[in-house]
Order: sequence, then C-alpha cells, then structure tokens
Amino acid sequence: MSGTLYGLGVGPGDPELITLKALRIIEAAPVIAYPAPDKGDSLARAIAEPHIPDGKTEIAVRTPMVPGAFPAHDVYDHYAGEIGDHLSAGRDVAVLCEGDPFLYGSFMYLFARLAGEHETKVVPGVSSLGACAAAAGVPLVSRNETLSIVPGPLDEAELEARIKASTAVAVMKVGRHFDKVRRVIDRLGLSADAHYIEHASMADQRALPLDQVDTAKAPYFSMILIRRESGEAGQ
Amino acid sequence: MSGTLYGLGVGPGDPELITLKALRIIEAAPVIAYPAPDKGDSLARAIAEPHIPDGKTEIAVRTPMVPGAFPAHDVYDHYAGEIGDHLSAGRDVAVLCEGDPFLYGSFMYLFARLAGEHETKVVPGVSSLGACAAAAGVPLVSRNETLSIVPGPLDEAELEARIKASTAVAVMKVGRHFDKVRRVIDRLGLSADAHYIEHASMADQRALPLDQVDTAKAPYFSMILIRRESGEAGQ
Repeated sequence: MSGTLYGLGVGPGDPELITLKALRIIEAAPVIAYPAPDKGDSLARAIAEPHIPDGKTEIAVRTPMVPGAFPAHDVYDHYAGEIGDHLSAGRDVAVLCEGDPFLYGSFMYLFARLAGEHETKVVPGVSSLGACAAAAGVPLVSRNETLSIVPGPLDEAELEARIKASTAVAVMKVGRHFDKVRRVIDRLGLSADAHYIEHASMADQRALPLDQVDTAKAPYFSMILIRRESGEAGQ
Repeated sequence: MSGTLYGLGVGPGDPELITLKALRIIEAAPVIAYPAPDKGDSLARAIAEPHIPDGKTEIAVRTPMVPGAFPAHDVYDHYAGEIGDHLSAGRDVAVLCEGDPFLYGSFMYLFARLAGEHETKVVPGVSSLGACAAAAGVPLVSRNETLSIVPGPLDEAELEARIKASTAVAVMKVGRHFDKVRRVIDRLGLSADAHYIEHASMADQRALPLDQVDTAKAPYFSMILIRRESGEAGQ
C-alpha cells in the first residue's frame, strides 16, 4: 500500500504559528522533506525544528537559487523519484513548506510530479501575508475591497499599473527591488499608505515606514503593504 | 495595569487548523469574544470550540447581517466599551476571528476602537484562500505571478476587468453571486481553469467543477479559484 504525500504549511516563521494538524502529521510521518538552498540551512525546517522528533528520515530538496536556474526541472525529477520510492514502499512523506504550500510555494513542483500516482493531502498554513499585516498593525482589506498580491521582481510599468488599480496591495519579495517599488509608490502618491515589513513573525521582525528602510539591506523575505486610507479598512 | 487585546485567527473551519499560538492564548485569556449573527451561533466560536476551557467570560459580538446595515458602528462602539472595561480592569481579552484577523475580518472594527488605548496583539491565522486551494488541489501562484482577491459582490463589469487582468484570481463570498461570476468566467473563456469550493476544510467541504454547482444553494462561504493553465503554476 502506498504512503501518503503531505504538503504541510508550517507558517511564516514563528514556530508557534504552526497548526495542530501540521504538528500531528510531522510527528507521525517517518520521512520529512523540505526545500533548501544549494548549500546551507532550510528555512522551512528551521521553522518546524522544535516540532521534529528524533529518528526521522530527512530529505533536503536542494535546488540552485541562481536567477534563471529555477525551477530546475531535472532536480525536481530527481527528488520526486526519491520521495516516490518512500511512498511506494508504504512510508508517508511530509513535505514542509514555508507559509502555505499553494501560495508561491515550491511544493507545487513535487505535487505536479507525484500527486497523480500517490495519495496526496495539502494542509494549508499561515501565509506571510497575514503575518505582515499583523506585524504592521494594518487591517488590509474589508468587505468588498480588492486585494492584489504582486511580486516585487515585476517590471516597473507593470508594478505601477497593478498598484494603481487596487485598493490594497501586498508587494512580496521586495528585497533588492526596494528602490524600484518605492519609486512607483512615491509616483502614485501612496507613501503615507505604505508599510514595510521584514522577517514577519520571526525573532528579527521589523516594521518600518518606507523612508527609514536601509535599502541596501532589505532581505528577500520583506513585503510592502499598501492600504489606501480612502479604503474602508483604513477608517 | 491594562490587559492585552488579542485578535486571534482561528483558521478557515477545521478546528485542527488553529495555531499553537492561538491555542495558548485562548487557554490563558479570562475573556473570549467572537463575532456572531443577530441570532444563532458564532462560526468563529464553533471553530475554536474544542479548545475553549470551561469557566471563561464570553462576549458574543452580535451584529445585524442585513445588507446595508453592516458595519453597524454603534454596535461596535457598544462592544468596544464592554471589552475595554475588561482590559482596563487588567483582564486579557481574546477575540476569535475566522481565518485571519486582518484579511476581510470584522476584527478591524474593534481594533480601530481599542488599539490606541490598550496593548493589542494580532495573531495571524490560516485563511480560507489556502484552504480552498488545498481543497481543490490547485497550486494557485508561483514565483512572479500576480494573484487578485476579488469579492463576489462586485458589479459584473468590475469583476470582468479584474479577472481578465490577472494570472490567478480568488473570487470570495460567491454565494448568491454565483450566476454572475460564472457568466463572467464563461465570457472570458476560463471555465476549464475555474474551481468552485464551499466550506473549505470543514466537514461538509466540497470542490466541484462550475457546471456541477447547484447555483441556488451556493453558500456565503464559497469561493471560485481561477488559475490559467498558461500560468506556470498550471504546468
């Protein structure tokens, strides 16, 4: 009998923001997998670390992080094979995912390769979106307002068009795109409505006005939330 | 010394999708509050029910659900007063919120009235967005794709413009707006890319193709996810 593949959201960073369900499955599954950089530690594993019992088989799904090399399809083929072997042998595999597995998560590449052949369950997690809003103390959207989630790497014209068209916007993965995003926000006259947050829910969480951000140091895990004061959530 | 006001995300419906942090705070706080309809039960309380110890002081924040009457500012003024009295007396108050407190949650109305005077902490929760994607088995967005969250009550032209402009869309609160939303999706040729989900993560969760939905029965807590197959998350 085949094992079950689990995609487990482990939340945005604070180990206490894991769900009871993810915790139960981590404790029960004999095999734990998680995304990791070429070299170095896995953030997803670090988030779940206090909850991982000894004695698990662990698979670090190491992928190259150089721009253009991601997603590395041959790398995912390899790890899908390794995970598939465990499943075929009847062992459940829990894949840890930062935030939520299906919102900007790399779990989709394993899901695409394995869900057709093996029973697969996805456990949603707390996303960085809610964590950033909580860190900034900013209710994002209410009732009939629209929210756009926009990646910082988009080109400047597309960023501007999307921010202009929405009541509330979350610009994700700001990092080295900070200056570009800020130019757009300034041009649209939204600086007073914008909030910068880095490492939401983690020990080094910071929420700052845009003009206090050291632009050279904005990390990959940073976000800018824009909530127009004219929107109801701003009342 | 004033107590602390907590806005606690209790997740989308499955009581096991509550976080360890929300659970700890529910267990410790002497006063629990939650939104509720005029008459009848609170969904947020029902989600957290297995985790609420006996002996708490409970406040049902009852608001009229008739269209046009919400948000009822005098009602929120009243409950903010009641909660504020507990805080001023040094008692922590945990406000239970379906999903995430700052994503389409009514907690913002209490937050606006109380956060200026009392220490306030917001604990993010699993939103219905991730729960719906998990229920449908649909990775929503990857890498540099844009996601729009659009309320079903919007008028038809605005819905169409917003859906047309995005790679991935979540239409929330579909319910009695199902026929309108479906017309828009058909017109844009996106029917094959659309997934209907109701009561995500709850015991009566259902995920269906649009043409199998009984339109007269779509509940308020229903969502349509649209992920273009041309988007990378569809590969």
